[in-house]
Amino acid sequence: MTDYIRDGGEIYRHSFATIRAEADLAILPDDVAGVAVRMIHSCGMVDLVDDLAYTLDVVEAGRAALEAGAPVLCDANMIASGITRKRLPSGNEVLCTLSDDRVPALAERLGTTRSAAALDLWRDRLAGSVVAIGNAPTALFRLFELLAEGAGVPAAIIGVPVGFVGAVESKEALIERAPAPYLTVRGRRGGSALAVAAVNAIATKEEL
Amino acid sequence: MTDYIRDGGEIYRHSFATIRAEADLAILPDDVAGVAVRMIHSCGMVDLVDDLAYTLDVVEAGRAALEAGAPVLCDANMIASGITRKRLPSGNEVLCTLSDDRVPALAERLGTTRSAAALDLWRDRLAGSVVAIGNAPTALFRLFELLAEGAGVPAAIIGVPVGFVGAVESKEALIERAPAPYLTVRGRRGGSALAVAAVNAIATKEEL
Repeated sequence: MTDYIRDGGEIYRHSFATIRAEADLAILPDDVAGVAVRMIHSCGMVDLVDDLAYTLDVVEAGRAALEAGAPVLCDANMIASGITRKRLPSGNEVLCTLSDDRVPALAERLGTTRSAAALDLWRDRLAGSVVAIGNAPTALFRLFELLAEGAGVPAAIIGVPVGFVGAVESKEALIERAPAPYLTVRGRRGGSALAVAAVNAIATKEEL
Repeated sequence: MTDYIRDGGEIYRHSFATIRAEADLAILPDDVAGVAVRMIHSCGMVDLVDDLAYTLDVVEAGRAALEAGAPVLCDANMIASGITRKRLPSGNEVLCTLSDDRVPALAERLGTTRSAAALDLWRDRLAGSVVAIGNAPTALFRLFELLAEGAGVPAAIIGVPVGFVGAVESKEALIERAPAPYLTVRGRRGGSALAVAAVNAIATKEEL
């Protein structure tokens, strides 16, 4: 039988050491580098660094918000499922409203996707929250609309929707507007695993 | 406000058309190409095609198993969370045993990760199942061990663990052994989203 490393802690340490040796992290602030390591770990691509865009305060702002008990608002159930609860510093609520019974009718009324309509149910929770959008570009666009309408401003926005329609544009709009401290990945790459990795990294300084 | 496409169906159609225009799908069998489109859609990278490895019967075998009511066995809760239930043809069970109370003690006894130990709870369900491993290389290695010990053979294996320790090796071992019809992505790339996309594509011929 093939021999392989079976110790979870050792696997993490080897993985993170390989990433730190290969990825060009020197250009990043220390705390963002820590987040980048975890994001790279989740996708297997060290060149993800080249596409990272962020505000210098995003990790500090996100972590402070979580320590103060802020909820994490996710656009996809996969993200809510992937966030490691024991890394969250204050037993923070992790909320995804996509499956809420009100969403289909809301989507029809707004003439948009369910992913975007689901954000309307975040309206009262947005102020000071940590937003994690890793699936739908329409959700990120909808966030800008809600903020333009006067919704409360999040403490930090992890905005990494993925794909071929609107992903590039929504993330460039996030960079241009910067309505709050943010972290994103330019281009088509993105997804739930990257959003989860970013939240798990921001949640605590502990690597393991 | 930025204009953007808000119609979910139109977003899918545009996305899939872009992928079919850009990705080198001609080298793939038709049914595998359909799965590749969905996997590319989930990660934003058309060059994923270059790393696909598979047996010619994997889509047919996986779909037939699901139509006959086979369960989907997942190594990560994110995968179980991401599989679109209404695409499954027979109300199939989607099972992830990672959070089972017995797993921590099992992992300690076996001297392995919880992800790998969780597979021991699949033992009686493996025969004829659709396996979706998208996170832990140790889970894929453990699957080989269970099969070597005489566990029932799955109908199809989606084996796309991600990362820097064991991912490459476990997937090369899958290709070399081919213990059942399989689909994998060579190299470090992989993850829950790719596993979910593959299962969602295999589940039904319907694209939308």
